[in-house]
Formats: sequence, C-alpha cells, structure tokens
Amino acid sequence: MQVRPRLVTLEGGEGAGKSTVLVALRDALEAAGEEVVCTREPGGTPLAERIRALLLDTPSAANGHEVPAPGTELLLMFAARAQHVHRTIEPALARGAWVISDRFTDASFAYQGAARGGDPRFIAELERNVVGIRPGLTLLLDVPVDIGLARARGRGGVDRIESEADDFFQRVREAYLERARAEPDRIRVIDARQPADAVAAEAVALLHAHRGGAR
Amino acid sequence: MQVRPRLVTLEGGEGAGKSTVLVALRDALEAAGEEVVCTREPGGTPLAERIRALLLDTPSAANGHEVPAPGTELLLMFAARAQHVHRTIEPALARGAWVISDRFTDASFAYQGAARGGDPRFIAELERNVVGIRPGLTLLLDVPVDIGLARARGRGGVDRIESEADDFFQRVREAYLERARAEPDRIRVIDARQPADAVAAEAVALLHAHRGGAR
Repeated sequence: MQVRPRLVTLEGGEGAGKSTVLVALRDALEAAGEEVVCTREPGGTPLAERIRALLLDTPSAANGHEVPAPGTELLLMFAARAQHVHRTIEPALARGAWVISDRFTDASFAYQGAARGGDPRFIAELERNVVGIRPGLTLLLDVPVDIGLARARGRGGVDRIESEADDFFQRVREAYLERARAEPDRIRVIDARQPADAVAAEAVALLHAHRGGAR
Repeated sequence: MQVRPRLVTLEGGEGAGKSTVLVALRDALEAAGEEVVCTREPGGTPLAERIRALLLDTPSAANGHEVPAPGTELLLMFAARAQHVHRTIEPALARGAWVISDRFTDASFAYQGAARGGDPRFIAELERNVVGIRPGLTLLLDVPVDIGLARARGRGGVDRIESEADDFFQRVREAYLERARAEPDRIRVIDARQPADAVAAEAVALLHAHRGGAR
C-alpha cells in the first residue's frame, strides 16, 4: 500500500460536518498557493457517480424496490473507488495537486465491514488489489450517533444508507474509532460536537502540521 | 464453493451461438416437466441490468467517453453477479427450478482475467467471497475467433467489450479451453463451428446425461 501524502480524506458518520471542514481545508491550501481537487465517495468521476446512484437510491417503484445485497454494495463501492483513484485522484496527485476526498477506503471498513458484517480481510484484499494507495492524512470527525443523526435528518433528503437504524451507525462510529486507535499517526480524531468553526480550525491546524511534515 | 447441479451455464466467445442453445435447453427441460429460469450475465436482475449498462456502453459523448478501468470492470462484473445469485439464481434453485445462465463466473476468468490481465487469484477470491456457488454443468461453445467475430459483427450492435481487438478474443478462447481441461467433468466443450441445430442437439444430449447423473 503506497501512502500519498497529498491525499487527505475526511471520515465520520452522518451529520459530522465533513462538508464545512472540506471547504475550510480547500481554502487553507489555496491560500498557501496549492492546487486542490475536492472530491467525494462514492463518486468523483461521472461513471463513479452513476455507481453512487445505484448504491444510494432509496428503494422505490422506480428501481423495483431492489436493494443491493451486502456483497453487491461492497463491490459497487470498490468499483466506484477503483475508477475514482484511476481517473481523478492519481492524475491530480501526479501533477502535484492536493486531493481532499469526502470519504475513502476507511468508510468501507466502517460501513460495509463493521456495520454491514462484511469480512474485514476480504475488504483489505479489495483495498490491496484495486485501490493500492492510502491517504497521508485522514481526519475523523467524531460525533455521538444521536447528535449526528439529528443534524443529518434535520437537513432532509435521507439516502438509502442514511436511513439505517441507529445501531448500524453505532457500529460505524466504533469501527472508525478503532481504526484511529490502530493508525494514530494517519487518522486524527476531531471532536465534532464542537461548533463548526472550532472543528474547522482544528482540522486546518492538523492539515498545516501534516504539510510541515509532508513537504 | 458449493456445486449447484441445477445451475447450467453457457460460455463461449462472441458469435458462438449461445442464444440458440439456451432456447433448446429450456425447451428440453420444460418438455420434461421442469420449471426453468433463463437468465444472463452481466444482468439477471433490474439492478444488475443497470450495472450491465455501465459495463457495456460504448464510450460516447453521453458517458463522457469514460471507460471503466480494469479493476472497475472486474468489480462491476462481480457486483452484478453477487446480486444475480442473491436475487435470481438462489431463489429459483431453492424452489427446485433449473437455471440456465448465458455466462457466469468462468467468463470473468476468461475476459477480466486472461484477456484483460486481471490476477486469477484475486478473481478466485471474489468468487469465494461473493458468489459461493458453481454450476453443475457448463457448456463451452468453442469456435475459432475469426468465425465467431464474423458472426457477431454480422448481426450488428457491437458493445464496448465486443469491439476489442482480435487478440483479446484469442486470449478469451484459450482461457476457456484451459478451464475446460482443468475441470473436464463440469465444463463440456462443444464444437460450435457445426450447424446451429447440431450444436443444440449436442448441448441437449449433454444436459440429459447430466440430469441422469444429477437426479
């Protein structure tokens, strides 16, 4: 697995405030004269966005109420990720840009692995075979499940995965925190119960510290 | 890997005549009073058919000329297959029906593996983790590449994979034949240069022999 210092990923459950942080990180990098590509998963290329729709559409008459099986969900996530790395992330890194992605491989270990019951060894196999890279810095915006869900549901438009039961998100949160304990240098945890500007300021400080080290 | 005697798959390169054989096998089973589900890959459920479109669309302005990366293609194939097994094949087998599929996992070893350069060990890993079953009988309709392509291109409407170069299909053919040599009891080779009715008659005879054994 190759570490890409200029790939920065944001992780966290629903309503953790990733979007606000993403903008703050982009602004900080651009103020320092860097090129920045902001992207998201699942998605980040036109084809991967079409895969995203297959993954996140809520069951309805339009899709015959067909829900992806757990194995289907896992492979669609990694298919989208393979395309995202190949078409968007690697070309941007190759020309010296920074890439900030709203979610990346850690999310599959948390959602399709811990929460959905997928085998973490198989997920690691997928990471090795079709992703091949790890971020230099991952910011985990941690917030208790009830607070995050209240925020996420308050803004409406809940997708298929966002409409899971609370214990699903409890498993997501615990899996993220466990990954952060296992890789404390890469995955930095930010208490996202704080006001949005305090969360953003902490994220920017961590990014600057990382840039100092990654130069 | 669990063998499912009532799952019969048809494999072969372009223009091998799988569609004609599929109808003959279905008619033979129905004449014997069996329920038969005819299906195909990639596809076989509404969601899997939407994945098929992502896989086989030729690059055009409508899809931004975006071609799936090899890893993306492989995982989309297995995502569609996982859904197909979960939603169509296993429920049909569970109620005692026969399932005849135009292509199955062997095709990924031939196309995404041998022809496209995918690692066969990783493909076997995908088979173990998200497919879990093997057909009781696979009929490989073998035809020289030039003859098959002339037939396929003669009927028009060539998809993204069908428009690969001839050496791609040469690798597909050799990989299929190699798999048949490795599993001669499951994979029976039929010379598909013969007239269509002779190919169909041979396929039906092999199916009846299999039914005798599978009863």
